[in-house]
Amino acid sequence: MKIGIVDTNFARYDMARAAIRELRRGCSAQIERRTVPGVKDLPVAAKRLIELEGCDMVMALGMPGPQEIDKTCAHEASTGLIMAQLMTNTHIIEVFVHEDEAGDERELASLAEQRTREHAKNVIKLLYHPEELTREAGTGQREGFEDAGPLGR
Amino acid sequence: MKIGIVDTNFARYDMARAAIRELRRGCSAQIERRTVPGVKDLPVAAKRLIELEGCDMVMALGMPGPQEIDKTCAHEASTGLIMAQLMTNTHIIEVFVHEDEAGDERELASLAEQRTREHAKNVIKLLYHPEELTREAGTGQREGFEDAGPLGR
Amino acid sequence: MKIGIVDTNFARYDMARAAIRELRRGCSAQIERRTVPGVKDLPVAAKRLIELEGCDMVMALGMPGPQEIDKTCAHEASTGLIMAQLMTNTHIIEVFVHEDEAGDERELASLAEQRTREHAKNVIKLLYHPEELTREAGTGQREGFEDAGPLGR
Amino acid sequence: MKIGIVDTNFARYDMARAAIRELRRGCSAQIERRTVPGVKDLPVAAKRLIELEGCDMVMALGMPGPQEIDKTCAHEASTGLIMAQLMTNTHIIEVFVHEDEAGDERELASLAEQRTREHAKNVIKLLYHPEELTREAGTGQREGFEDAGPLGR
Amino acid sequence: MKIGIVDTNFARYDMARAAIRELRRGCSAQIERRTVPGVKDLPVAAKRLIELEGCDMVMALGMPGPQEIDKTCAHEASTGLIMAQLMTNTHIIEVFVHEDEAGDERELASLAEQRTREHAKNVIKLLYHPEELTREAGTGQREGFEDAGPLGR
Repeated sequence: MKIGIVDTNFARYDMARAAIRELRRGCSAQIERRTVPGVKDLPVAAKRLIELEGCDMVMALGMPGPQEIDKTCAHEASTGLIMAQLMTNTHIIEVFVHEDEAGDERELASLAEQRTREHAKNVIKLLYHPEELTREAGTGQREGFEDAGPLGR
Repeated sequence: MKIGIVDTNFARYDMARAAIRELRRGCSAQIERRTVPGVKDLPVAAKRLIELEGCDMVMALGMPGPQEIDKTCAHEASTGLIMAQLMTNTHIIEVFVHEDEAGDERELASLAEQRTREHAKNVIKLLYHPEELTREAGTGQREGFEDAGPLGR
Repeated sequence: MKIGIVDTNFARYDMARAAIRELRRGCSAQIERRTVPGVKDLPVAAKRLIELEGCDMVMALGMPGPQEIDKTCAHEASTGLIMAQLMTNTHIIEVFVHEDEAGDERELASLAEQRTREHAKNVIKLLYHPEELTREAGTGQREGFEDAGPLGR
Repeated sequence: MKIGIVDTNFARYDMARAAIRELRRGCSAQIERRTVPGVKDLPVAAKRLIELEGCDMVMALGMPGPQEIDKTCAHEASTGLIMAQLMTNTHIIEVFVHEDEAGDERELASLAEQRTREHAKNVIKLLYHPEELTREAGTGQREGFEDAGPLGR
Repeated sequence: MKIGIVDTNFARYDMARAAIRELRRGCSAQIERRTVPGVKDLPVAAKRLIELEGCDMVMALGMPGPQEIDKTCAHEASTGLIMAQLMTNTHIIEVFVHEDEAGDERELASLAEQRTREHAKNVIKLLYHPEELTREAGTGQREGFEDAGPLGR
């Protein structure tokens, strides 16, 4: 198995390091990493990892800024990441942490670390233990935050 | 016949269980289920069920959150689901229940159950009895809510 | 010639009946009809009519609801219909009547009837008399409403 | 050389006439014209002119209305026109004049005439004299309006 | 190596000149330049440089105006640039400078010069020294502005 990681130098936290640590802890897949300038460069970088480097799954890591234009960039990147998946029949797990999701820098760093790690676990489940994801279906998982949990009745 | 179901662990209700029950009641198709983290992972998962597992139709189940970013994610997922259908010439019936569509958690659970079941019936009609859908054309069907009905004159 | 019609059971008016009547009055093309649940199911249904049933043109009929989410669905459907046309090199004439385009139900029904009929005439022109459309170029046609007419000078 | 022109009967000004006059003045290319109902029909019509009629470049002319829904239609059409270009590796020069870009009908007609003519000149440059466009690079050209000019320093 | 540059005559600053200077300083790649009218013409121009001229990477330079319609055009262009990358498996580095990003014309010119140069450096890194980008991962690079830097803790 080979897992690709694409991240950006626009991000203010080294999310790839968090992803790699978690992946190494949970599986023995080979890891291939590429860094691009911003989130809009992620889709083609992820597709190249799949088609030119043979990756079986890719994590796309980004930290969009807080302004309107940043939200638009993130939306364009997400649309491209979905298209890249459809063109390759391969999952690309998007891990975006928006700069305005946390109150201060320390909290933001912690959120980025945590969300990336939890999504790295999702990648391992998708690749090796898909039945575990099905066991969690409908349980309100929230990567990086406390889970919302299943609806009370 | 083979029907695919993709759902998420982000959702707070096990919509797939509702879908499977209704499908089993109404037809004898084989059912193939996959669970992914969030709605943006649904398009490629649905396409894989069609192209790699031979599904004749897929249900894509999701429960987007109430915030602006969740609405954007749902929009991106829907766009991807339509693209996946166009690339495969195969229907993917999207069943999304937005968290802010109901007043409380109990009502939301009931809406999720009901809408999923009614869309499972749509799937059966599309696959086995398309003429029934044509009989209902223009009658204002609303899955999960009371039907709007045809326009009065 | 073969003309496809796709409509929905979400719509509150039987627009397909209006389309079929007008098409039968104006040409002798074969008509193939399919009904789907909502507007987001129209793109793949239209593409299937073109690629699997050999339709030379398709009418896609829908009646989006009045809420924000309905507007988003209509936008996603329209984007998909344009993509379906590009993938098939075939015109799909979209006829959408938004529930909030008219003051009451009777007016809305009348608008749906009229707009569908006028677009059915457009389909006949596109297929059989394209030069008639060119004669109308720049004249401010408005299907279902009074024409805006050419700009005064 | 063969240049395609697609316009609409929704537009309130015969922009194609302006385009054809300017093209005939500036080059000897063959011209192929098609008229469709609205701007959302332009992408496939342009693609057909390229792929079925052998056009080397296409002008897509439209006059979107002033309402919110018209803006959405224009956005969908533009997205489709870009996709059509990517699928054919051929330029489609979009010339849209929004009804609310001018104060009165006369001014709007004049804007439509002027912008179309200036874009027809762009088409000639792209096909025959690309080096002229490069000479104008960064000079703030504004088709139909006074040029913004290069930034002062 | 061959690097493509596409720019516009809509822009009010000759960003291509800045890009070419920086590229010539940092590498010996062949440079191929094309100029188009506006940002929506960039995607197909970039794809043509890749597929017809054999460029290994492309810079797409644009300066969207300050109005709502300009923002929409930029969004459509960005979406198209991402699609062009996915269709060619080749990076297209988008360098857009919005007219309202700076307080006056002089500042805007300086921003355009600086951002273009810094992105030209990114292109060189992507092509020749990808490991340098990985060293910068998560460090909050901001082309044309002061870097945001990594999150404090």
